[in-house]
Order: sequence, then C-alpha cells, then structure tokens
Amino acid sequence: MKLKNDLFLRACKHQPVERTPIWIMRQAGRYLPEYRAVREKSNFLTLCKTPELAAEVTIQPIDIIGVDAAIIFSDILVIPEAMGMKLEIEEGRGPVFDHPIRTEDDAKHLLTISPEKDLKYVMDALALTKRELNGRVPLIGFCGSPWTLLTYMVEGKGSKTFSTIKKFIYHNPKLAHSILHKIADACALYLSAQLEAGANAVQIFDTWGGLLSPDDFKEFSLQYMEMVISKIKRKDQPVIVFSKGAHSSMKQLSKIGADVLGIDWTFDFEKTFKKYGTTVALQGNLDPTILYAPVEKIQVEAKKILDAVGNKTGHIFNLGHGIHPDVSPANAKALVDYVHSASEIIRRNTKSKK
Amino acid sequence: MKLKNDLFLRACKHQPVERTPIWIMRQAGRYLPEYRAVREKSNFLTLCKTPELAAEVTIQPIDIIGVDAAIIFSDILVIPEAMGMKLEIEEGRGPVFDHPIRTEDDAKHLLTISPEKDLKYVMDALALTKRELNGRVPLIGFCGSPWTLLTYMVEGKGSKTFSTIKKFIYHNPKLAHSILHKIADACALYLSAQLEAGANAVQIFDTWGGLLSPDDFKEFSLQYMEMVISKIKRKDQPVIVFSKGAHSSMKQLSKIGADVLGIDWTFDFEKTFKKYGTTVALQGNLDPTILYAPVEKIQVEAKKILDAVGNKTGHIFNLGHGIHPDVSPANAKALVDYVHSASEIIRRNTKSKK
Repeated sequence: MKLKNDLFLRACKHQPVERTPIWIMRQAGRYLPEYRAVREKSNFLTLCKTPELAAEVTIQPIDIIGVDAAIIFSDILVIPEAMGMKLEIEEGRGPVFDHPIRTEDDAKHLLTISPEKDLKYVMDALALTKRELNGRVPLIGFCGSPWTLLTYMVEGKGSKTFSTIKKFIYHNPKLAHSILHKIADACALYLSAQLEAGANAVQIFDTWGGLLSPDDFKEFSLQYMEMVISKIKRKDQPVIVFSKGAHSSMKQLSKIGADVLGIDWTFDFEKTFKKYGTTVALQGNLDPTILYAPVEKIQVEAKKILDAVGNKTGHIFNLGHGIHPDVSPANAKALVDYVHSASEIIRRNTKSKK
Repeated sequence: MKLKNDLFLRACKHQPVERTPIWIMRQAGRYLPEYRAVREKSNFLTLCKTPELAAEVTIQPIDIIGVDAAIIFSDILVIPEAMGMKLEIEEGRGPVFDHPIRTEDDAKHLLTISPEKDLKYVMDALALTKRELNGRVPLIGFCGSPWTLLTYMVEGKGSKTFSTIKKFIYHNPKLAHSILHKIADACALYLSAQLEAGANAVQIFDTWGGLLSPDDFKEFSLQYMEMVISKIKRKDQPVIVFSKGAHSSMKQLSKIGADVLGIDWTFDFEKTFKKYGTTVALQGNLDPTILYAPVEKIQVEAKKILDAVGNKTGHIFNLGHGIHPDVSPANAKALVDYVHSASEIIRRNTKSKK
C-alpha cells in the first residue's frame, strides 16, 4: 500500500521533503488520557500482548497529536522474555526479572528465539496496526540494543549505580560477550521479522550506552549494534539507532550502518548536524522538559533546531528522550503543529545550500 | 606552613610534576570501614557540623588510601540551609527540604549568608583539618554550583525527571535568575571564606548541569559559575569546576576562569586533553565502576589515561564521578599506588613534547 505521508521515510533516507516530519518517543503513552483509559482496563504486558489494544494505542497519537510516524506499542524486554526470562512489570517499580542472569549456568538457559512464533503477538499487532493505519503514516518497529537488554537481564531491575552489570562485565567479560552475541542474534531476527510483518523502519534503543566509558561502549555496545544492523533482512527500510548520551562515540556510531542516529537533548543540534548530518540523518533533539513550558517557548526552542537544518535533507524532528507522562497533550500537539508549519516556511524561504 | 606534597596544586597550575597527583571524589565516605565506624555514632549532618569528626573523616583517606589531596568533609546543601531552608538528610532517602521554593514569596525568605558566622563549623573544620594534616597534602574546599543548589532547593528532594525545577525555570525565569544571583553571591562568599580559613583550592560541583540543553546550560548554570569565580577572593589558590555530563559546553567552560575542569568518565580523555589540556588543567576521569574490576584491569584503564598525558603538565588523576560505597578500599588503594608509580615512570620515559 502506498503511503499517503512518507515524509518520515524520505527524511530517514536523506531525500528532499517539503516539511520536516516529527514523531515523539514514547508518544503512545501515559500523557494521553486516551491511553490511560485503555490502560486502566489491562496491565502493561497484557496491553503489549493483545494486538487489538496495542494497535489502538499505537494509532492514538496519529489521530490526536498528528505525528508523521507511528511506533508500535511494545516493550524492549519482550526479547529477554522470549529468551525464557520471567518478566513482571510492576506499577511504580518498573520491570523486574525475578531470576536475573549472574552465572554461566543462568546464561545456558537462554533460548534461541523464533520471533514469528515466540513474538507472534508483536507481528500480529504490526499487521493489524498497518491495516488500520491504512497508509496514513509509516510504522516503526523497535528493539533494545544488546547492551541495554543485557543490563536489564543482569541487574534484574532498575538501578541507580548499575554496579551489578558493571561487576559482571569486568569479572566475566567472556560470558558477557557470549550473551551479547546471543542477544544480538535475537535482535536481528526480531527486527527482520518486524520489517517482514509490515514495519517501514526500525529503531534500536540503546538506552544505557551512555553509562559506559568510550572504550567500554565500543566493546560492549557499539559492535553488537553493528552486528544487529548487518544481519537485519531488509529492503530499503531504514534503521535508526538512538544511543542516549553517547557524545564521545558519535563518529563511530555514524559508521555502523544506521541510516539515522537519534541524539538526546544535551547535544548541540547545530554543531552535530553540521558534523554528522551529511553522513547519516539525525533524529531529535528538543529537551523533553521544554514541553512543560508555555507554547511560545516551545516554538522558540523548536525553531532553533529547524533553523539549523534550513532546507537541508536528513532531519527527523523528535524529542531528545521520551515524552514525560505529566506533559499536557495540548503542548505536544502545539509542537507538532509548529514543526509542520514552521518547517515548511523555513524550507521554502531558505536558499538551497546543498 | 609549607606543604610537603604540593603535587596537586602544581598540577592545577600547569606546573611540572614528577608524578601525577590523584585524589578521589567522595574519598571520605562509606566505602571506608573507618568512615562507617565514625558515622555509626552520629548522623550525617552532625558529622558535617562537628569539626573534630569532620576533620577525622577528611584525613582518613590520606592515611588509608594515600591520596595527594584532602577534601573537607561536608555537603553542598549547607548553603541552602544557611540561607534559611530546613534540611533533613534521611538515611536511604537522601536530602530533603520540607519547604522547597516554589513561589516569589518562598524566595523572599532566603537569607544573605555570613559564612564566617553561619557556616563557622565548616571554617573550624578546615582550620582543624589543616592543623592535623600538618602540611602533608593540600586541602580542598567546595560548594555546589548555583544551578545544582537551585535544583535541590526547588525539587526539595531527589528526582528522576527533574520536572519540578524544569517547570520552575520555564514558567518563572525571572524568579529563577534572581534566586540564582543570590545563590551565586552566597557561593562566592562561602568559597572565599573557605580559602581564608585554610583551603588550598576549591571545587564547584555542578552535579546537575548535564540535565540542561546547551542553551539552558549557558543561561542557568554556566554564567553563574563564572560569576562565582569572578567574585572569589583568592591568592593563587586554584578553582576547579566539575560539570557532570557537560559534553556540549566544554569550550565555554574552559573560559569561565576555572583553573581546572573535572570531566566525567564518558569523556574520551585523550581527545579532551588534546583539545582543552593547554587552556585549563583537567581532572579525571576513570570510570568509578572500574574499581569493581580486578586490579590488573584497573591498572590497564588507568594507564590509558596516564599514557594520554605522557609528561605533560595539567592533569590531576581522579575518578569520573564519586567513588561507589561498595568499592573495596584495597582496590582504591591499588589505583592510587599504581598512578603514583606508573606516572613517575611514564613521565620519566616520555620525551618532552611540551
């Protein structure tokens, strides 16, 4: 089916766009009353595993906020769960694995996944969402990076210091690498299956890459994302990598085969776009807390990013991190509306430089 | 009194050193059984406010770990407390202000401080520590950056999203700036008093600077640190600024009058030292979690940093963040010993390049 709005895909591929596409990380989420209404009736994991509900909340921000891409409602921890780890998502406490991985024996029990079977509910949700979207906007699939998944699998729950995973990799580097290989294989299979099931693009969330020193980042995160990307079966569907806080590794990140790099709000957008914006497309990077500000301030800050791009190709507007649950949907919509209208004017009025 | 070991001060001033000085952020802390023994007998604030006890735990790491500088045992929140805010430090919950600042009226109640009177216990602790150190190593005083203090004063307690402070600055920028001015004045007075009381250097901890986008960092953190530094009364005592996560603002930070910039472990040390190491001295930046690793790994990682410096001036070895409470003191000592011996050899064997 031909897409009625393919701005997002064109921006990912560095093709010309008449206005800048925008989507918002965690856009199908708690800040929307419509999401909370669905969520009241079922717990988080049930929501992920019921294609009709997942499709419903995935499409909500398209209708309500007007973003240019949908991202399938799911969780990065469905992979470890499919690999055999028992996952519980507790209200207010976040995800918990009762039996985190600590030893070689724990790791032996990790299963090889068949995404079409073990994660059929995601494929069904993608197919259903695709049908219901009816070509309005592209649909994004995703997974966590191998390093980020390993962090959860070893810590077992959220952490402030991440000392368990750090002790693990420093004392058992061989074991860590062997599990990272397994996870990378699972990620590649999973993303390939999502693309086959109808996703138009996929994003790898490397949420915890920024915990690592630059050398450790290369060793424990970067190379596995590169491995995943090299193994994904795809046609011309773009791959986005979002490695939060990876300031010191942008150069390396720009060379692992990702079409798009997400950058968080602590990056200087203008400089980063100048430096890397011709090698890869960039996605980002408005400070998510700017959505707490009055609309005029939101517009001023969004304009800085749009002005830095001018009429160049290769930018997808997004926040620099997930939208906070206490943001007003009106402000999110004001941002989307502004990016749409202002980028069109800026693109039209900027003399072509590229 | 002439210092027997002034390596730290010489490194801060970009003067030649025969070996690299090292100290460890949060070195007087919970990872030391000797600290925990003192701490068992009194709560955290009593410890800060009893000069004999503060001096005792300040000197512990000099005796036990062998670092090249002492940092006075205290807390950054003594300033807001001296400004009239009631502070409680609860075990396991961190510091709490029962009446955080939310309105203009709240801010009106903030007092102008006289450090020699209101924070006499800190000056007494410095003077006593100085006497007891007897010239063995220099003594560092410190304060929080105005932005970091404002964050605590408005949030009232620790936060994951920092939404309260962000809403505050976006909706009340004028009020935020007027409080930041007040805090900056207090910081300058406080640091001046500490230098007068015997501190050989001072460090400004900008723990939450990295929360901000580069533009907000300039507006709400950077300019106030510059203001503090310009107002400090000092002889040739160095000022260190540690702005965690301020990757995008290093250039600006190198120009605010600080002699030394601390960098966290996510910086590429070699590149950063090449780029900024002649403008300012650099302090850092071993990943604090490396101290969980076997000693050989600790040495390998420390050597990378020492090799990047060679025999150049302007480096103080430190962790890239505070030492974790569950680190073994033996590993901390192994790091200090290694930096001492290896840096001497590396400095001797490196052909002079500078």
